[in-house]
Amino acid sequence: MTSTVITGIGELVTNDPARDGLLGLVQDAAVVVEGGRIAWVGSAADAPDADVAVDAGGRAVIPGFVDSHSHLVFAGDRAAEFSARMTGEPYTAGGIRTTVAATRDATDEQLTGHVARLVREMLRQGTTTVEIKSGYGLTVRDEARSLAVARQFTDETTFLGAHVVPADLEPAAYVDLVTGPMLAAAAPHARWIDVFCEDGAFDVDQARTILAAGTDIGLRGRLHANQLTYGGGVRLAAELGLVAVDHCTFLADADVDALRDAGTIATLLPGVEFSTRQPYPDARRLIDAGVRVALASDCNPGSCFTSSVPLCIALAVREMRMSPAEALYAATAGGAAALDRDDVGSVAPGKRADLVLLDAPSYVHLAYRPGVPLVAGVWQGGRPVHPAV
Amino acid sequence: MTSTVITGIGELVTNDPARDGLLGLVQDAAVVVEGGRIAWVGSAADAPDADVAVDAGGRAVIPGFVDSHSHLVFAGDRAAEFSARMTGEPYTAGGIRTTVAATRDATDEQLTGHVARLVREMLRQGTTTVEIKSGYGLTVRDEARSLAVARQFTDETTFLGAHVVPADLEPAAYVDLVTGPMLAAAAPHARWIDVFCEDGAFDVDQARTILAAGTDIGLRGRLHANQLTYGGGVRLAAELGLVAVDHCTFLADADVDALRDAGTIATLLPGVEFSTRQPYPDARRLIDAGVRVALASDCNPGSCFTSSVPLCIALAVREMRMSPAEALYAATAGGAAALDRDDVGSVAPGKRADLVLLDAPSYVHLAYRPGVPLVAGVWQGGRPVHPAV
Ligand SMILES: [Zn+2]
Ligand SMILES: [Zn+2]
Repeated sequence: MTSTVITGIGELVTNDPARDGLLGLVQDAAVVVEGGRIAWVGSAADAPDADVAVDAGGRAVIPGFVDSHSHLVFAGDRAAEFSARMTGEPYTAGGIRTTVAATRDATDEQLTGHVARLVREMLRQGTTTVEIKSGYGLTVRDEARSLAVARQFTDETTFLGAHVVPADLEPAAYVDLVTGPMLAAAAPHARWIDVFCEDGAFDVDQARTILAAGTDIGLRGRLHANQLTYGGGVRLAAELGLVAVDHCTFLADADVDALRDAGTIATLLPGVEFSTRQPYPDARRLIDAGVRVALASDCNPGSCFTSSVPLCIALAVREMRMSPAEALYAATAGGAAALDRDDVGSVAPGKRADLVLLDAPSYVHLAYRPGVPLVAGVWQGGRPVHPAV
Repeated sequence: MTSTVITGIGELVTNDPARDGLLGLVQDAAVVVEGGRIAWVGSAADAPDADVAVDAGGRAVIPGFVDSHSHLVFAGDRAAEFSARMTGEPYTAGGIRTTVAATRDATDEQLTGHVARLVREMLRQGTTTVEIKSGYGLTVRDEARSLAVARQFTDETTFLGAHVVPADLEPAAYVDLVTGPMLAAAAPHARWIDVFCEDGAFDVDQARTILAAGTDIGLRGRLHANQLTYGGGVRLAAELGLVAVDHCTFLADADVDALRDAGTIATLLPGVEFSTRQPYPDARRLIDAGVRVALASDCNPGSCFTSSVPLCIALAVREMRMSPAEALYAATAGGAAALDRDDVGSVAPGKRADLVLLDAPSYVHLAYRPGVPLVAGVWQGGRPVHPAV
């Protein structure tokens, strides 16, 4: 088994609670990788020998990003709809139903190609773990194949048949379909089940029913909630003890308390607010109340087509007043917690060797240098995946 | 002389006024490059043969970005100051004087290395023409060598001795130095002269004196004005008929009229407002009044350390309500106009062959996909410079 030592790391972010500070920083560090796992972490001066040595040249190394919320399985293009929204022009042809129609029309090979392209794009930007949802099929066949496509790229697949009620069905009939044959077809390809709990999508009772059907057969629940309006979705997530509830823009004090008490992670998705001019969630209120937060991209063709976790970090700092350290932690350890994963999101012996070399002396540059492609190297499970070597 | 034809361009942005619309779009286009210049532009179906053929695979091609405002010649790191500003922590050690001290201490080789790294980073993001200012030396020797370093990378060098009054000099004495021996030493390496005209920097009378000294010996004037407070800098720029005045956040109606009547370009730098939480300039007011605008990065270690013109385009759309087309035009043709260049910023026969291939079907994706590194290929003067080939 070949071992690799990465030396000359000017600043290493470990997220290791056994080390100092939120990020467990180590200056002048080295990391040894063996068998796809982290074998050793410490001062460069103390680094053991290894078969291969890589010099980070004084630059920073961070854990690979864990993007716990994305919608990558789709076809079609909605750039014109985006333009119209941004410029205030009328645009009637757009919306999620456009994507649903294009996704249903696409072949499996086309869908796989699109997902492959976006996952590669994410890898180049440092995302080494990604959750992928279905939700643009909305038929038994199209939800199942969307998840089968996603499963080729990640274990973190989420059945989101309950994304929107398709145009040709009544809500009650669609909930029956989602909890019946669609769930049965989707479940073999999914780890999670999710519901878009919002005015105009699914209400709290429907969400409860759909999540219960999924958890009954072994899926784990998560929710989109309180994004566009105030509602009971966040409270439901806390009541059910879900690992994570995503968006969390409109919250009462009791919602914040419920999240903290339940230990449910609030996943914030500021790329959406950037791309829609909606109000950003109040990250400080959540963090200061003791709620754990994650940052994710929500990459999707409608409300947010960025795949860039570095941009989400810059937005979290600029718009949500998270510190650069809080933002990076939320996008790595926070994302891992939101997927209930303890093998990723941090750099310590035994963890999966998912590492990102930045073209910068410090992780702070992720926020200080917004938009700049700072990811100079990526290892996933110990394998160098970017740039291609 | 080898000729190259780029075919399969799904969408070509030409900025050619002889074609339709602001961007002069051509669908299913081809471009022929020969001797570093554009030789032919048209429909792929009509493309002539060439020695080398490159297939754009249906993706979009745009003119290289013209970044008409940057401060790349400096040393030192101010990430900690950025963090403190963003989180509201006190931070007393920072500010421009930190950068001045580090720049004076740096060797020519170190300064050259830093600029080279940033110019390469810009090239990878599609910037094929960049203006670079001095302004972190503030001594005769350090301003002259800053410009000599910059001149290795661009013809668009700007003497900005009048950036701030150094700590050890009175304002009047410093203006004498700037207009006397410093100008004499800087001029051989500079095309432009610039003044930071703002409360706490240089007032309108000082700016007028400094610009006159520069233009007397053949430099051309430009200004930083009305960024942080209302002042007379923009009016001075219009009165002097300068090509461009940069920032333009605080304007009276008479300033807007004066810019339009003078034909002076207002260069907007939204990366600064993103990185400092200052108010964005009102691009719509300017554009709707008939003022020509440019977009540039203002890349510098203090107020804005992004080098990403794509991010500036996304911010222009999100925060300043420019359309994606207006934003791209401002970052290409607008930047060229702000540097009084007619050989760059557009794609037409005779222009320099500065072309950017996007990993996207349309230029709209620059705003629709914020933060995503979409630049798949760059030609500068006909030479493929990214990715290295
Ligand atoms: Zn979502
Ligand atoms: Zn500037």
